[in-house]
Amino acid sequence: MSGNLQIVLGRRPTARPAVRDFVVCEGDFPVAGPDEALVRTILVSVDPAMRGWVLDGPNYLPPVPVGSPMRSFGIGQVVVSNLPGFGPGDLVVGMTGWQEWAALRRTEIQRRIDPGLAPVSTALGVLGVTGLTAYVGMLDIGRPTPGSTVLVTTAAGAVGSLAGQLASLQGARTVGLTGSDEKRRLCVEHFGFDAAIDYRAEDDLAEAIRCACPDGVDVFFDSVGGATLDAALANLNVGARVAVCGTIGLPPDGEADGPRIERRILVNRISMQGFLATDHLHRIDGVVEELAGWLRAGRIRHREEISPVLTDAPAALVRLLEGRNTGKSLVRVADIDP
Amino acid sequence: MSGNLQIVLGRRPTARPAVRDFVVCEGDFPVAGPDEALVRTILVSVDPAMRGWVLDGPNYLPPVPVGSPMRSFGIGQVVVSNLPGFGPGDLVVGMTGWQEWAALRRTEIQRRIDPGLAPVSTALGVLGVTGLTAYVGMLDIGRPTPGSTVLVTTAAGAVGSLAGQLASLQGARTVGLTGSDEKRRLCVEHFGFDAAIDYRAEDDLAEAIRCACPDGVDVFFDSVGGATLDAALANLNVGARVAVCGTIGLPPDGEADGPRIERRILVNRISMQGFLATDHLHRIDGVVEELAGWLRAGRIRHREEISPVLTDAPAALVRLLEGRNTGKSLVRVADIDP
Repeated sequence: MSGNLQIVLGRRPTARPAVRDFVVCEGDFPVAGPDEALVRTILVSVDPAMRGWVLDGPNYLPPVPVGSPMRSFGIGQVVVSNLPGFGPGDLVVGMTGWQEWAALRRTEIQRRIDPGLAPVSTALGVLGVTGLTAYVGMLDIGRPTPGSTVLVTTAAGAVGSLAGQLASLQGARTVGLTGSDEKRRLCVEHFGFDAAIDYRAEDDLAEAIRCACPDGVDVFFDSVGGATLDAALANLNVGARVAVCGTIGLPPDGEADGPRIERRILVNRISMQGFLATDHLHRIDGVVEELAGWLRAGRIRHREEISPVLTDAPAALVRLLEGRNTGKSLVRVADIDP
Repeated sequence: MSGNLQIVLGRRPTARPAVRDFVVCEGDFPVAGPDEALVRTILVSVDPAMRGWVLDGPNYLPPVPVGSPMRSFGIGQVVVSNLPGFGPGDLVVGMTGWQEWAALRRTEIQRRIDPGLAPVSTALGVLGVTGLTAYVGMLDIGRPTPGSTVLVTTAAGAVGSLAGQLASLQGARTVGLTGSDEKRRLCVEHFGFDAAIDYRAEDDLAEAIRCACPDGVDVFFDSVGGATLDAALANLNVGARVAVCGTIGLPPDGEADGPRIERRILVNRISMQGFLATDHLHRIDGVVEELAGWLRAGRIRHREEISPVLTDAPAALVRLLEGRNTGKSLVRVADIDP
């Protein structure tokens, strides 16, 4: 327990972050203040939202300061606790950042994990904010009905693969959009999509969606935006719902021109709603319980890609943003103290 | 009872319809078929949606055929009825079209009017589809709460003026967008908006909205789209709702480019929903009853502009589409037979 290995934002990227934008540092070993818990980081999360977090400009969170450890969700094990209700050995999900040790205020701790429920790594994925994201976007906003057609972007990814399975559980027909033939097969064979499209192999994505969704699209779960949204909008049915989960297909600040969509929204009486899972954290225990039930019953599947050491985190983020991962991307930092 | 004066679509306009696109004809006097009622037209409606109805291209209704009487809502008085439940003298709202006489099937009759409730002309305006449009857009979709800020387009118009008053009744602060200083004053002094902006007088509409809505905008009732929507989006609060009622600021087919909006929808968790009042006609009796209560209690006001003869209808439509009317635009065709 000497220093604190950290991955720090070394400079502010102007576009997609690169490995060289991050610096490996030895920070001070943190001390738990009067309203804090000292945790040892076990695993950290790598998320598409990080692209926005490191940039200047308006977002739903202030940008990560240059010189600070990268913001991230993580799993920590409590070593010293000055927080009522938390004691040494407890496993928690919180904003650990990309570092070995963190002193967390109560507001930075999202919840305690029950390690008997499922492998603890799932608390950052299918049984964590990833699961909550898919749940809110698909079940609260998308609300698929039996026999309806549901189109899901980044369908082999952590959120998309779960969103598709949740729609299947509702009896919907699911079609996935993904970025390689390998992932296309993964969508159909592993995650149970009824069909999947490798958008990189299509000259006319709207036409490819039309072929895969002959009855049109009733629910569109969109983590991409841009031309992908345009292609989906061309296939939406009257009364369709669009859950806007991300805009990874746009420049990070979202500034781009394209066809105006309000006439189509009007004519087809479309409802389009943006959401952030973090607005729904107060519901996560109930959602996780429900998802855990489906997971134990074998009704939903998930994939994880765990990089073995903290210094891999920037490369894992770049892989993710290039669409070269499959499943939830995590980085191992330390083992749980049994 | 010889012929049937009709205003027929003489040719298909390519942009905003002009008076010369319509032709005055003497059609055949209609005969009520076995499942029809013959009505004498009393009043017909002039609506922004007509711009879309006369064009080719995808819309929520097929285009009005060239050579047919212009499609419109109207008030008719039944002369001969082969429909159970309707008898001579009854006043009905239905798709009379711009013509003196019409044989209406049951599906073309929206409802019977109670002439004791209010002047019958209101059945095409504040106590008709116009009222239903404002009600659905503001109360079902916008859902303003006390103290919230509501921004309304075409605020001196039939739908906008009512939408603003419905928001005021919910305790919201209302700001109207309108196209002249005279209408701006009408919004504030007659319809009770807390503030109004003459958008034609503003170089920077987003900035003008910012000044008029210092706490941001929680509900945006949009009948315009395009640059007006962009200016409003720049001022929407987290969780804001946009009711997409029309796109009169776009070319008729809605085809235009502009800034992409999905990032803003995501970051501010905005919900944007298109609607057509005609989807909600099954609810109109209840809505009209509620609106009639407010009208009788003096809690809402409305304006009408009634052109005196049927042949005025094309010019009334052009006036409306140029924003030169105030209040609900109607055309008188005949007097009620007492």
